[in-house]
Amino acid sequence: MNIILFEPHEAATNQITIHDRRSEHILKVLKSAPGDTVRVGIINGGSGSGIITETSDKSVTIKLQINNPEPPPRPLTDLILALPRPIMLKRVLAQATALGVGRIFLVNAKRVEKSFFHASLLEDESYRDYLIQGLEQSVDTLLPKVSIHQRFKPFIEDDLPELTDYPCRLLAHPNTKHGLWEQVKPPISGKKTVLAIGPEGGWIDYEIGKFKDQGFSAFSLGPRILRVDTAVPAILAQINLLRSIP
Amino acid sequence: MNIILFEPHEAATNQITIHDRRSEHILKVLKSAPGDTVRVGIINGGSGSGIITETSDKSVTIKLQINNPEPPPRPLTDLILALPRPIMLKRVLAQATALGVGRIFLVNAKRVEKSFFHASLLEDESYRDYLIQGLEQSVDTLLPKVSIHQRFKPFIEDDLPELTDYPCRLLAHPNTKHGLWEQVKPPISGKKTVLAIGPEGGWIDYEIGKFKDQGFSAFSLGPRILRVDTAVPAILAQINLLRSIP
Repeated sequence: MNIILFEPHEAATNQITIHDRRSEHILKVLKSAPGDTVRVGIINGGSGSGIITETSDKSVTIKLQINNPEPPPRPLTDLILALPRPIMLKRVLAQATALGVGRIFLVNAKRVEKSFFHASLLEDESYRDYLIQGLEQSVDTLLPKVSIHQRFKPFIEDDLPELTDYPCRLLAHPNTKHGLWEQVKPPISGKKTVLAIGPEGGWIDYEIGKFKDQGFSAFSLGPRILRVDTAVPAILAQINLLRSIP
Repeated sequence: MNIILFEPHEAATNQITIHDRRSEHILKVLKSAPGDTVRVGIINGGSGSGIITETSDKSVTIKLQINNPEPPPRPLTDLILALPRPIMLKRVLAQATALGVGRIFLVNAKRVEKSFFHASLLEDESYRDYLIQGLEQSVDTLLPKVSIHQRFKPFIEDDLPELTDYPCRLLAHPNTKHGLWEQVKPPISGKKTVLAIGPEGGWIDYEIGKFKDQGFSAFSLGPRILRVDTAVPAILAQINLLRSIP
């Protein structure tokens, strides 16, 4: 927890008492005492510092000073992810948020188990906790927008084309002869990019065809097969590196 | 499990009966039956195919055909990792192995908790299971060499210089103005590279100085702070991308 985040309704008053995992972190990990300052932010809002005014065994009272009233700009990379199993999804959401993504589209695919869409993680929106973990880790305040698409065809044919136009559209696919470097030529620093990562077992040919119809370029990470919780940080980091090349 | 791996002593006879997590995978995930073929390999050895000759509820008998007698070449990137907490280490070892590393040096640092060195994961070498998971995932047979260095100074001053000379030496350090692209200019495709990743809270100045004395270039991944299980796949993947640039 490298920033202590508050919900907007909590930050309506500028002095807040908390007794949850945040106060536990402040007391047990940061070992802060009254007078100390911690980095604070408001979810989807600004950031600044918090002065600890009072502590007890389990609670902490903080006075917020939001010096930076605006959230950071939305990251330029969006992620289309074939819905993974819930335990994997938790990890991937936190990792992708930490690395910085603007939107996350959780989509169906032939090789996605249908039951994954009925996981409580999605149905009660508890996945939001993992996005917040990613923000807390990476000192960010802006939640990625998450949307769930139970039908692949309407998503790829209708929903995606209606969104912002992406100059850079990438499809991770193991059996492709091109690497990422051959498909993306810098500079891409200011370009909106969308990256699609398939399910365990990969996209089927029909799905790959649909992505290609939408202008996606397929690339491979090489002969090694990666789990989705390795592939997502790996490829997002590679795109970040490509963005840094002038 | 994208390859079924056998210990060299198991592969001494070319027909083997197994009843462990490998047979469980073959029966329950691959749903293989007698006559089917699975991809097989020998740890630190060759690879080929295995013909299933017999199955029961829990056991599988396989006849090995090692068509490829040599292990793949050792990856050119080595990893120096400030020892993380055991639960994190398990994940990082599997991820790093899946992405391909030649050696892993687990080292001490000021901000490493000393108790981590006494984890059963290290003391009984059960960390090897996580390396094997990485190989099984990425269809590899060659285990990274792992060494444990409880004292930082002898490691950096004596052990490291005695090893293969690395033309490319990189130190991940958040508070650095340079990005990876500024510190590594392709082509590096055939160059041995060593990457050092610090503990939660980072390397201290003394440690950074010692790395710089050994010719390491510091780079930052940007303002976002990443957990080690995100940073390791992220940076290894970035180095793999740099290797692919002609």
